[in-house]
Amino acid sequence: MLSRTAEYALRIMILLTEREGTSLTAEQIAKATLVPAGYTVKVLQQLGRAKLSKGQRGRKGGFVLACNPSKVDLLQVVTVIDPLKRITEFPLGRTEHQHSLCALYKQIDAAIESLQKSLSSMSLKEVVKSGEGESLCQEHGHGNATLSVKAAN
Amino acid sequence: MLSRTAEYALRIMILLTEREGTSLTAEQIAKATLVPAGYTVKVLQQLGRAKLSKGQRGRKGGFVLACNPSKVDLLQVVTVIDPLKRITEFPLGRTEHQHSLCALYKQIDAAIESLQKSLSSMSLKEVVKSGEGESLCQEHGHGNATLSVKAAN
Repeated sequence: MLSRTAEYALRIMILLTEREGTSLTAEQIAKATLVPAGYTVKVLQQLGRAKLSKGQRGRKGGFVLACNPSKVDLLQVVTVIDPLKRITEFPLGRTEHQHSLCALYKQIDAAIESLQKSLSSMSLKEVVKSGEGESLCQEHGHGNATLSVKAAN
Repeated sequence: MLSRTAEYALRIMILLTEREGTSLTAEQIAKATLVPAGYTVKVLQQLGRAKLSKGQRGRKGGFVLACNPSKVDLLQVVTVIDPLKRITEFPLGRTEHQHSLCALYKQIDAAIESLQKSLSSMSLKEVVKSGEGESLCQEHGHGNATLSVKAAN
């Protein structure tokens, strides 16, 4: 669904939003988000180029947020790393069945749109606020450091 | 987003729905859907195991629909090939930032849910009906046999 790298970028941006105003080293970020160290630096470079975060040099150097987290939504972060592609043209050549297949792609595109809408419905700040003080992890369970998923019914 | 194989399975199921009652060879299916021949056979086997299509032997042999296309939606076809995974547990171990990151995963899961809902909102039959008689391809453009996509804004 989302690429692993896009997921890492979201974790990092959520951390930087939570710690707004504080400079964090790549090592601190990797530790807090459980993003592998090599990926952390790579993702921070991409976020930096998109002006979502920035690196600061010097004794208090590190990485900080470089955007207004109330105005940046989850889709914008995903788009920096790995854009969700919409279907803008019928992807097959003319066949004798083009109408039904074209209708299919219209529906697939609608599904991608609904995914995009959901990701753009919440800003970084809203996500952080929704996590504050609430024991959300209790709802989801916790304890394993690997991605835990189950197949859709 | 959707895997290439899931997309192939959708194309094949739409064709079988459109040609309900007619037996088609794997070669005819590959030609009409532009799914590579090797994939066509592989996908038909998976659809067969899921009782969505079936192969018939003999002189009039080939593949036919084995389900009610009004009761099978696009998500069910995707799920046979490559299920869209929901997040059922907080995927990270306990960190000092667990609440915000957990809120993030809740939102990512909501996005996956909206994608699933969109795919399950239309049956195979409804897709075929929506393509009938309408020049949907005109809206989307046509003419190239490769997947044509553009990045989200």
